[in-house]
Amino acid sequence: MTTVLYPGSFDPVHNGHQEIVQTAAGLFDHVVVAVVRNPSKTPFLTLDERQEILAETFSHLDNVSITSFSSLVVDLAQEVEADFIVKGLRAVSDFESELQMAQMNKEISGVQTLFIPSASSRSFLASRLIREVFRFGGDVSSMVPEAALRRMREKGTE
Amino acid sequence: MTTVLYPGSFDPVHNGHQEIVQTAAGLFDHVVVAVVRNPSKTPFLTLDERQEILAETFSHLDNVSITSFSSLVVDLAQEVEADFIVKGLRAVSDFESELQMAQMNKEISGVQTLFIPSASSRSFLASRLIREVFRFGGDVSSMVPEAALRRMREKGTE
Amino acid sequence: MTTVLYPGSFDPVHNGHQEIVQTAAGLFDHVVVAVVRNPSKTPFLTLDERQEILAETFSHLDNVSITSFSSLVVDLAQEVEADFIVKGLRAVSDFESELQMAQMNKEISGVQTLFIPSASSRSFLASRLIREVFRFGGDVSSMVPEAALRRMREKGTE
Amino acid sequence: MTTVLYPGSFDPVHNGHQEIVQTAAGLFDHVVVAVVRNPSKTPFLTLDERQEILAETFSHLDNVSITSFSSLVVDLAQEVEADFIVKGLRAVSDFESELQMAQMNKEISGVQTLFIPSASSRSFLASRLIREVFRFGGDVSSMVPEAALRRMREKGTE
Amino acid sequence: MTTVLYPGSFDPVHNGHQEIVQTAAGLFDHVVVAVVRNPSKTPFLTLDERQEILAETFSHLDNVSITSFSSLVVDLAQEVEADFIVKGLRAVSDFESELQMAQMNKEISGVQTLFIPSASSRSFLASRLIREVFRFGGDVSSMVPEAALRRMREKGTE
Amino acid sequence: MTTVLYPGSFDPVHNGHQEIVQTAAGLFDHVVVAVVRNPSKTPFLTLDERQEILAETFSHLDNVSITSFSSLVVDLAQEVEADFIVKGLRAVSDFESELQMAQMNKEISGVQTLFIPSASSRSFLASRLIREVFRFGGDVSSMVPEAALRRMREKGTE
Repeated sequence: MTTVLYPGSFDPVHNGHQEIVQTAAGLFDHVVVAVVRNPSKTPFLTLDERQEILAETFSHLDNVSITSFSSLVVDLAQEVEADFIVKGLRAVSDFESELQMAQMNKEISGVQTLFIPSASSRSFLASRLIREVFRFGGDVSSMVPEAALRRMREKGTE
Repeated sequence: MTTVLYPGSFDPVHNGHQEIVQTAAGLFDHVVVAVVRNPSKTPFLTLDERQEILAETFSHLDNVSITSFSSLVVDLAQEVEADFIVKGLRAVSDFESELQMAQMNKEISGVQTLFIPSASSRSFLASRLIREVFRFGGDVSSMVPEAALRRMREKGTE
Repeated sequence: MTTVLYPGSFDPVHNGHQEIVQTAAGLFDHVVVAVVRNPSKTPFLTLDERQEILAETFSHLDNVSITSFSSLVVDLAQEVEADFIVKGLRAVSDFESELQMAQMNKEISGVQTLFIPSASSRSFLASRLIREVFRFGGDVSSMVPEAALRRMREKGTE
Repeated sequence: MTTVLYPGSFDPVHNGHQEIVQTAAGLFDHVVVAVVRNPSKTPFLTLDERQEILAETFSHLDNVSITSFSSLVVDLAQEVEADFIVKGLRAVSDFESELQMAQMNKEISGVQTLFIPSASSRSFLASRLIREVFRFGGDVSSMVPEAALRRMREKGTE
Repeated sequence: MTTVLYPGSFDPVHNGHQEIVQTAAGLFDHVVVAVVRNPSKTPFLTLDERQEILAETFSHLDNVSITSFSSLVVDLAQEVEADFIVKGLRAVSDFESELQMAQMNKEISGVQTLFIPSASSRSFLASRLIREVFRFGGDVSSMVPEAALRRMREKGTE
Repeated sequence: MTTVLYPGSFDPVHNGHQEIVQTAAGLFDHVVVAVVRNPSKTPFLTLDERQEILAETFSHLDNVSITSFSSLVVDLAQEVEADFIVKGLRAVSDFESELQMAQMNKEISGVQTLFIPSASSRSFLASRLIREVFRFGGDVSSMVPEAALRRMREKGTE
């Protein structure tokens, strides 16, 4: 049985993330999606909201479970007995920082990271840009799952 | 008649920006230079100062007009009836985030972005570095238009 | 009236090229698509075939004309009285060589180049990869215009 | 059971390749290492030599098998019933062409590619550079497996 | 006699920095390592701590001296009569911002920058990631010099 | 005394190369410019022509000497007792292959490489593009030293 860990901020989860989870769920036995609790940044959506959106978005996939963490990602990987970490890759700028982090994580724990390339039609999606467009009243309904959109609208643009 | 929108922070406008405006003004009928009012960052120069510097710098070009905006750039593009947005491109790191933004803007509004490459002799210019050099008392007179330099000196290095 | 020159090998033209021509034809008065005759490489499709495919593919666009050239691209730009050259941009690796060529072309002739970003859903398309897939019998029908596909099939995989 | 396909030229296999195979063999049930027969290039080592070196290098790993192919890689993936393709990633320049190929392969067949980052200590290894150093009499013994070194020395620098 | 200036934040100094200093000390007569006092960021280690760690780490190298600065780096270069500045280069993302800064520094002062590539086995090291791993209780002992590790442990993870 | 080795094809030497040599000659005691004899490519200018052009171009610099080589560059470095190799860096695409080669050279011989960034106004210069422009009759007089231009004109565009 192969378990993989997919960590991220998911603030909000978007269609690019969704595709990575679906790909991983199709290839491996168990996918743990883990939301990072980053105390140094004020998120747009709370940790609970982000977990609830993920749970709703992936409720139809039996082998996907949702959790959160505020430790090193490699400690979580060992705790959930993940065989490896998966990360999406969209663009060159992603690639270098992700590669650096993957090498650092391997160095400190032996935990391996594998990269899943984004479908090119979603390579422009980024949570930061989606938040910005949403805050100015732009239409992001083609970029995020239904559950994320509903929560973002309840929350409003402030 | 072709109208193009050139948005930016211009804090301060530098010779690389100036070249993009001159190129666009030579190729197209009307160039709208638009200063973003970004409430989340404290700028070095106020919005008014940045608009006045731009107005003075491009006063000799009849087909250049200056405005500001605090909305989505694509909303402004539609408001001023721009045929498309133009952005300068200096380096690879510019390229990826600009490409992402261009694709996002096309997705949410249909508005197209075209890129004008910087002349190589200006590819190192960046407002952030210019502000830093100026604050430490360095000489930036070869990097910014006369009007920007005068304002920056009035303001002082604090 | 704005005339733009869009040069390339088009061996074969693919959907990414098609999108650039359509975008340019929507923004500007006249688009000259020019096929380079590169004597140092043996093309997959002959120069005539490539011109015929382009003519058929863009026959519905009144303001697009097709030509070929074996000179410097900036000499052709001046000959057809193009206001500037347009090139598509897909990825970082494109960007650097294109930027270098654009700066060289400006240096030797004053002719400007503007870049049109590819829609992200077509960013993986490249004539070289399409030829390779086709030669091994792969299905490229979702990647090239109808006229290119018909010609490629007539020609066979050899 | 998870089967993965690891295609490449392996001319010669080097320690960076070796590490990718070992990582994949540790994570998945079966690793098929496949040497491409590229008729358009004259290789340094023949197809047979490259297969024999790989077989010897990975003889201690029960779940690694060696094959060769002259078709589309996605056809081979379906033939050997691979769940997905794995590729190593060393550097940004690798990344873009690999991403393009991964997206193309997914488009034409649905076959997914996953990337395994090279350990940073092997990121400079490349078969092309190793061949060059070897031809000029340089010492490559720290860069290739024992079996590759022995074959290369038998073959000589010509 | 050749004097070179090696500026940085060194928060903390890591094995990648250490290698650059050792390389520079082996090639040139005198290496000035200079810690930047950046008033706009709260460092993990104080300026004094960072200087003490550097002094201890390089105490065995006679031709290395440690200083700090809060001016333009090119002013310091002229003050210490450095022939040029040296910087380490690990990755593409480093490269572009470092190149921009090097060109800016040459423009404002004539001071040249030379780049020393990191050994690939240390290319993933970055002070920011090391601080993060340390704060979450991860083991960074293979990444920083002894003196840095001792100070970090005295300070604790807070 | 510091001796540095500057290897390259110099087919032809251009103003970007010239600047690197001048910078190195200003910083170090002795600069050995070495033309590679690459038997696998047919050069535009012969090895002798390239050496003569370099000798003429740098005849006013007492501490620059010209040689050629057909061995590993690190063997030449040891033969001429160079303290290190210098290479120019223009762009990201240069950077990765140069970094790879620098790490390989260090691995096989211990010889270090240092990089000198090109002035931004010369970052678009590349011998390959210059040859291409020249062959089509374009004006390259602003891009190459006088001695190179004269030789190229004698040779003609063929």
